[in-house]
Amino acid sequence: MASISLTLNLALVESALQLVPTEIQAHPQIKKYAARRMKRPSEVLLDRTFHHTAMQKLAQKRFRLPVEKMGRPDIVHTTLLQILETPLNWEKHLRVFVHTQDDYVISVNPKIRLPKNYVRFVGLIEQLFANKQVPERGSPLMKLEKGTVQNLIARIQPGQVLGFSIMGQPTLMRTAAKDASEIADPLIFIGGFPRGHFSDDTSRSIHSIFKVDRESLDAWVVAGRFVYDFEWAIGVAQRRIKPEKDGHD
Amino acid sequence: MASISLTLNLALVESALQLVPTEIQAHPQIKKYAARRMKRPSEVLLDRTFHHTAMQKLAQKRFRLPVEKMGRPDIVHTTLLQILETPLNWEKHLRVFVHTQDDYVISVNPKIRLPKNYVRFVGLIEQLFANKQVPERGSPLMKLEKGTVQNLIARIQPGQVLGFSIMGQPTLMRTAAKDASEIADPLIFIGGFPRGHFSDDTSRSIHSIFKVDRESLDAWVVAGRFVYDFEWAIGVAQRRIKPEKDGHD
Repeated sequence: MASISLTLNLALVESALQLVPTEIQAHPQIKKYAARRMKRPSEVLLDRTFHHTAMQKLAQKRFRLPVEKMGRPDIVHTTLLQILETPLNWEKHLRVFVHTQDDYVISVNPKIRLPKNYVRFVGLIEQLFANKQVPERGSPLMKLEKGTVQNLIARIQPGQVLGFSIMGQPTLMRTAAKDASEIADPLIFIGGFPRGHFSDDTSRSIHSIFKVDRESLDAWVVAGRFVYDFEWAIGVAQRRIKPEKDGHD
Repeated sequence: MASISLTLNLALVESALQLVPTEIQAHPQIKKYAARRMKRPSEVLLDRTFHHTAMQKLAQKRFRLPVEKMGRPDIVHTTLLQILETPLNWEKHLRVFVHTQDDYVISVNPKIRLPKNYVRFVGLIEQLFANKQVPERGSPLMKLEKGTVQNLIARIQPGQVLGFSIMGQPTLMRTAAKDASEIADPLIFIGGFPRGHFSDDTSRSIHSIFKVDRESLDAWVVAGRFVYDFEWAIGVAQRRIKPEKDGHD
């Protein structure tokens, strides 16, 4: 019954985070956007807010990835903001990975201080795609490698892979967190895309998929709540605050 | 013991959200920024990421507001993202307000679909400051009025005002949420600024101030967790998912 897992591995998978694909780098909307940011079209992140028209072209060309799920770096940013500055991470019980739609894996150093500003975050990720790590020299705060969901699993060797999706088994989030805390090195998959379900490939590698609400929840809500429930499940939340002792501990 | 409050009033107070002050509208950094966005310097939101140099001038001039706590619209954005698309809000148990450092109060319609993209959010808030409501015509999704923290309290008439701050009484967040659910129309204050404590004026209007972790937590982490704990306290989380029934309810 006691919790055995002290480290939660959390991966945003199939995240809508990628550079502008070659196929639309010459599109006027992309060229103008890149010029304004003083970068080459090949160096900027795809962003639906700014590249909607160009992305329609991509859809027409039947691009190899699901275009309606692409170009949302904000999902990764908002989710990371919600889980990195938490007691769970401060106490080294959290390891965070971002797997992307075109099979890159970003390993996030728990010590990172993520830019709170979205524009800065986008700049940092562009740097990461250019240099494979940030900062360019010294101990990396983020590292980028080629890798599939299966590679990530092989690397972490989790006791089980758990996932969250509206297509899953109805389960209270707190129960899922408690269960996860009783697995050795649990690995949690949360979709880093706007709507819909995991790909078949990803689904097949998940042991249990949970649905924690009637409606689809944003990735950052699921991640934030799960990290919080996991803190409780392993006692971090309670240990850090002692209500009876005037705060001296 | 049963919960009596079905509606949580949550206010981000003294939020670092304001238009560029008159005193620095002629600063080259501001003029260039506004021109690039095809707006007047008086129409753009102050943003530390882009206006750092100009803000240093403001600090030297001993501006009437705490400059180190200004120019962070991202705090309001990230926090709203974390609490608006939640079961608590979907079930109409949440009312959200944003009070700003220079005493404006934004009332947020629970039906709003907030822009997920930061750049879009900034544009929307600039529109709100220009027109006092968005959209300009019809039922407002956000409304802006002059108002102090005291005005907000007079309007909501809460049973109690509770606040979160590192200077508060050590309390488990879950306990605070349970307590809040037993108050008629509780009003929660969370600081919408980067660091530090509420102003003396604000502190005086709060009945109980809670410290829920050893370290200072970001506004969006506190707000997200409290909304979640409040959902549990009033039974929303549990009611929406029935683990035993294969999800048919």
